Amino acid sequence: MAAQPRDVVEQYLKLVATGPTDDIIALYAPEATVEDPIGTPTRVGHDAIRELYAALDSADQRSTELHAVRVAGNCAAASFTLTAVYGDKRMTLSAIDTMEFDDAGKIVAMRAYWGPDDMVME
Amino acid sequence: MAAQPRDVVEQYLKLVATGPTDDIIALYAPEATVEDPIGTPTRVGHDAIRELYAALDSADQRSTELHAVRVAGNCAAASFTLTAVYGDKRMTLSAIDTMEFDDAGKIVAMRAYWGPDDMVME
Repeated sequence: MAAQPRDVVEQYLKLVATGPTDDIIALYAPEATVEDPIGTPTRVGHDAIRELYAALDSADQRSTELHAVRVAGNCAAASFTLTAVYGDKRMTLSAIDTMEFDDAGKIVAMRAYWGPDDMVME
Repeated sequence: MAAQPRDVVEQYLKLVATGPTDDIIALYAPEATVEDPIGTPTRVGHDAIRELYAALDSADQRSTELHAVRVAGNCAAASFTLTAVYGDKRMTLSAIDTMEFDDAGKIVAMRAYWGPDDMVME
């Protein structure tokens, strides 16, 4: 049975916290599109999507907290907070991501809703 | 100056709680589309959209709680809970809505993420 949207969202947020990046990428279909945040150029395919998550690799610590996940058919939306520590700096990003899934349970499209006010570096 | 997405979202959730329905509809552009929840037929235009909110008119009490709103460019996503009391029954719906806005600050597209598990009648 294909992975269910809710399970994929939970797995996604777990992997954003722990890595490895390849396991995050494996949740995406090969030709998936990612717009993160909305308004920036759309990334198409695994190689382009990988660049998005590469910045996480240099964090000393990172964690995610899932506030809400809602599933409608083959789509899901998730409200969450990502925290990443780089040396003595802490970055906190609160966003809502939407995802569309194919029949195999892979993410085919992800769009991230967040703006400058939603990212705090302190 | 056009209404800002965050203000429209907050106004929308206030009006879903208080009505009147015409004021909710006025937040939408004339040819707006609404898919609520995702997977149901898309409603196009004010008359079709009005039907969606008509069910609220028969509630004895209703309230909304905004948990999170995230804005990216001309798009916004909001996590919220709607409670409506009908006689001795209480309906609670927890959803994430996404909205796209035109240059005038009107909603041109709304999509609602929620499934059967997110609506409780007790």
